[in-house]
Amino acid sequence: MRKQGDIVVLEKVNDIDDVRELSLDEKKKLCDEIRNYILQIVSKNGGHLASNLGIVELTIALESVFHPLKDKIIWDVGHQCYVHKILNGRKNELKKIRTIHGISGFPKVKESLADCFNTGHSSTSISAALGMAKARNIKNQDYHVIAVIGDGALTGGMALEALNHVGCTQTKMIIVLNDNEMSISKNISGMNTLLTKLRSRKNYRKTNSRGRKMISSIPAVGKVITEVVSRGKNAVKQVFIPGMYFEEIGIKYLGPVDGHNIEEMERLFERAKDFDEPVLIHVLTKKGKGYLPAEKNPSLFHGVGPFDIQSGKVSSSLNTYSHVFGDTLIQLSKKNKRIVAITAAMKDGVGLAAFAKKYPNRFFDVGIAEEHALTFAAGLASEGMIPFVSIYSSFYQRAYDQVIHDICLQNLPVVMCVDRAGLVGADGETHQGLYDMAFFRIVPNLVIMAPKDFAELKQMMEFAITLNRPVIIRYPRGGESSFSMKRHALYFGKGELLEKGTDMTIIGIGNSVSKGIELHSLLQKKGISSEVINVRFIKPFDYHMVIKSIQKTKHVVVIEDGTIVGGLSSIIKELLVDYSLDSISSYYYALPDEFIPHGSVSELEKKYHIDVDSIYHDLLDKFIKK
Amino acid sequence: MRKQGDIVVLEKVNDIDDVRELSLDEKKKLCDEIRNYILQIVSKNGGHLASNLGIVELTIALESVFHPLKDKIIWDVGHQCYVHKILNGRKNELKKIRTIHGISGFPKVKESLADCFNTGHSSTSISAALGMAKARNIKNQDYHVIAVIGDGALTGGMALEALNHVGCTQTKMIIVLNDNEMSISKNISGMNTLLTKLRSRKNYRKTNSRGRKMISSIPAVGKVITEVVSRGKNAVKQVFIPGMYFEEIGIKYLGPVDGHNIEEMERLFERAKDFDEPVLIHVLTKKGKGYLPAEKNPSLFHGVGPFDIQSGKVSSSLNTYSHVFGDTLIQLSKKNKRIVAITAAMKDGVGLAAFAKKYPNRFFDVGIAEEHALTFAAGLASEGMIPFVSIYSSFYQRAYDQVIHDICLQNLPVVMCVDRAGLVGADGETHQGLYDMAFFRIVPNLVIMAPKDFAELKQMMEFAITLNRPVIIRYPRGGESSFSMKRHALYFGKGELLEKGTDMTIIGIGNSVSKGIELHSLLQKKGISSEVINVRFIKPFDYHMVIKSIQKTKHVVVIEDGTIVGGLSSIIKELLVDYSLDSISSYYYALPDEFIPHGSVSELEKKYHIDVDSIYHDLLDKFIKK
Repeated sequence: MRKQGDIVVLEKVNDIDDVRELSLDEKKKLCDEIRNYILQIVSKNGGHLASNLGIVELTIALESVFHPLKDKIIWDVGHQCYVHKILNGRKNELKKIRTIHGISGFPKVKESLADCFNTGHSSTSISAALGMAKARNIKNQDYHVIAVIGDGALTGGMALEALNHVGCTQTKMIIVLNDNEMSISKNISGMNTLLTKLRSRKNYRKTNSRGRKMISSIPAVGKVITEVVSRGKNAVKQVFIPGMYFEEIGIKYLGPVDGHNIEEMERLFERAKDFDEPVLIHVLTKKGKGYLPAEKNPSLFHGVGPFDIQSGKVSSSLNTYSHVFGDTLIQLSKKNKRIVAITAAMKDGVGLAAFAKKYPNRFFDVGIAEEHALTFAAGLASEGMIPFVSIYSSFYQRAYDQVIHDICLQNLPVVMCVDRAGLVGADGETHQGLYDMAFFRIVPNLVIMAPKDFAELKQMMEFAITLNRPVIIRYPRGGESSFSMKRHALYFGKGELLEKGTDMTIIGIGNSVSKGIELHSLLQKKGISSEVINVRFIKPFDYHMVIKSIQKTKHVVVIEDGTIVGGLSSIIKELLVDYSLDSISSYYYALPDEFIPHGSVSELEKKYHIDVDSIYHDLLDKFIKK
Repeated sequence: MRKQGDIVVLEKVNDIDDVRELSLDEKKKLCDEIRNYILQIVSKNGGHLASNLGIVELTIALESVFHPLKDKIIWDVGHQCYVHKILNGRKNELKKIRTIHGISGFPKVKESLADCFNTGHSSTSISAALGMAKARNIKNQDYHVIAVIGDGALTGGMALEALNHVGCTQTKMIIVLNDNEMSISKNISGMNTLLTKLRSRKNYRKTNSRGRKMISSIPAVGKVITEVVSRGKNAVKQVFIPGMYFEEIGIKYLGPVDGHNIEEMERLFERAKDFDEPVLIHVLTKKGKGYLPAEKNPSLFHGVGPFDIQSGKVSSSLNTYSHVFGDTLIQLSKKNKRIVAITAAMKDGVGLAAFAKKYPNRFFDVGIAEEHALTFAAGLASEGMIPFVSIYSSFYQRAYDQVIHDICLQNLPVVMCVDRAGLVGADGETHQGLYDMAFFRIVPNLVIMAPKDFAELKQMMEFAITLNRPVIIRYPRGGESSFSMKRHALYFGKGELLEKGTDMTIIGIGNSVSKGIELHSLLQKKGISSEVINVRFIKPFDYHMVIKSIQKTKHVVVIEDGTIVGGLSSIIKELLVDYSLDSISSYYYALPDEFIPHGSVSELEKKYHIDVDSIYHDLLDKFIKK
């Protein structure tokens, strides 16, 4: 890699047309410079590193052959779009990527015409690409549609549904399989076994004549394979059968090709243009390519905070809800042999790495497969286990039916931990965990809790085990509040009274409880006596405690880190009506009914007036006016 | 088939142990008798016919070899469980299947220990089975776990996710692939192409020596194949490669076997017991087997109302919302070339059969693949099409993330028709469409409408096209109310005032509007003057019209065919608080926050006091007391 700041070629590149005029040697230099550029930015701001370092040559080759303004390139998941953004008019904007006034870390149609489809969650690209290709055909237009998808994303059910449909319709489109031999965590699946065999083709360069003859005798399929694929002695099993999976379901298979060789890739992409049917191009890349610490530990450098480039040291806090969850689960599992843990390709993110090492037989990472994860948990629970599933809030949207249909309908004791609930910050609108309280609250049989701090998370996990029914525990990204708060025993469906007061009832849950405590102190100084209730349970809800307080204070303040529609705010409004509490003033602080973009959590809280300071001033205004 | 009422063997069979003592000849007789028995019942009561006729021998063979009280048999989807229920203590109860006082049409753990896992929605069985098998291993117990899954269900993403995980974990379990060459509608997928090739093995009985030698040379895999599978001249492509898909991802493949030959199946099931790794047994069955009209038209006899056995004539109404949807879409598509239609293996159910014939290039049945269906629609919409997706309400739970993440976040003009919204009746708790209003209402950018009658459905479909953003239109199973209602032009986010009154405001949407009209008449006779509002839109909501009316009448009655939590009832409560409408009496008629079992819609409405008569008497009680 070249030395820092050396951007001879990158200097000249402002959009993809500049790249397309470069010589191969210049393109190679550009790769080095882009890697350096990304490394400098991500080491300062944080972001997705390993996947972007891995896809530099692939992006350049792909967008040299296909034009992102004419053809449609869909980046699955989308966190690997930094190179694409650099090449398509956002080189300087990359410096502020993922910040409140900067560009997004994911493709956004609003940012550039070169971004044709928003992504963020995994495994959507083939479905979207097929839709675009069908639209093109109906409109009698002529452009290429390309889905770029990782091997990890290919384990997601909807990608497999889409592959089936693509194979059947025989619609002209291209799937670029960016195979870096892992998804976010290590890819664990049967599909991976299959891909491993495909990868090994590289190692077999020799041909035996019987093998060649047999392959050629397969009508239609044979030609492509004999032309493109190198074969070898273990021909039947390792060379052409695995690729046949794609061929068998109707998708032409090309590759594998070295994903760091621009020339080879460009040649293959050009070839792919000529097919009038679906083609899958198998590209082998290395996550973290060019930066040794990331090559060695791509999982750590997947989504990463600021780090030191020289040492590769990442300053990561162990002081997070995720870690407390993981540690607590280990403690609980020592005493209770029925406990098992499940996640979906986010072992590190949800804090289960240590559990996985300690209890390998009771830990299940099912890959990017949220639907399966939840029904798999239902199966375990139906036979006496107590599964703790931990998945991010926005990904539970992928397993909603499984929670309703497989877990809650049978009232099975699955403990569903909702990590990254509330605002998540830099990942932005696709990843904000703002809807789970609302969409889970309507499901019968569910118990829904949220802890105000680490200690309460432990309490809730211990408690969940005793309930023998489906439980949700939601908690935010990052750590607990620095405010120390009182502690009470936990009872089913009961809130806790944290501060007594007479003028106003402040109601919070989870993350928002400490805001209530802070407000209590601030208001006290203004002579306003507020009562603070941590409701603890969204469902069943402690109507009794809340009503008693409201009837006394006549003023109720609700604070939540979710959408204003359907969550805690709605619960309180329903309560006011259901219990005919007339002449009550109520104030609601929640996220509005719109998608919330990226930015730091504190910036977003200020922007949407749900930080303590905004609430305080708003309350003073309103309360004193009253 | 034997003549009606001949139940010599069935007479003696009360539970599965009785079956296990029968001779092969007696089992064959039993099959005929069971077919007759099911035919008699379903022709009277309606129910799932074709799938149950197809699975008689398979169920008997499977439960002769594996014991449903000791081993765990999970019936994917579950509508094919009639034979299983007959054989497991519910022979007489079958006569009242799917009725309010009878047993369910799906496996229910509450009904019998022989039902180990509830099903209803497709593609869950492999996930559940793997969970059960893992639990068994952790507990060091010893029983078999068997997932029985159709080829249609195998196109569902979560089944494919589960297959991957099964292949990787190498956990001992059995998958019985009940291959009847179609899902609910004709199976359209690449996976189907693959299975078609597997099926064709039956036709190749000859072996050539090179083929045999090569197969045997594949380590581990070869043995099974050479033992079990017949091979032939087109060996490489058609005989053993397709089965290799399962083998490649780590699942032993046995079959195909004739699913109507008890002896052969029992032999294969016995063999499967010996494997210590996952095994897939490929069973070929014929839907509708033994009843010619159902064999000829299994789709018609999939879920069917009462019919005449002799003629095979099904009395099906064309007078349904689904048909009006389909007819209207054809009309609209004549004028607007951008319209396309998408469904997920429910072409006939949602009324798209005629559209599919008329516009084959603009119609897409993606198979059982709701996730893909919605993102595929997003792709089409992003390139200028106007996709109308029609899926049942409870199946939208499968595509929730795709609606949020792929459609609404990009504000794409996909029109999502929610068929079978509200109570669906005999299919029961897994299929009730009670949650869609609540879970869709919290999603930004969505427009949500529901028509009060057929004519309004047409209005809304025409209107949806003009909006250029995501739209939900929800409507119930079956037909419109016989009450004739006034009609007004449709404006964005505006309700319509149907009856003027002074004492009470009745608010309804969709199905519940006609109840409001009926109540208006009834109350008038008692001297109560009610105003009836069809709000038309759940989102955006016509606060203005509703508030104006409530301020006048001081009494508001809300009627909806969804859960009391989060839908129209919640909207009105929120409104009362948000607009500080004090001293208003409000009355809510909705389904309670619990799962609602099977029964006819009218019976269920009575049971939950949301029929006109119950509401009327309740209102009289409360209103007159006030």
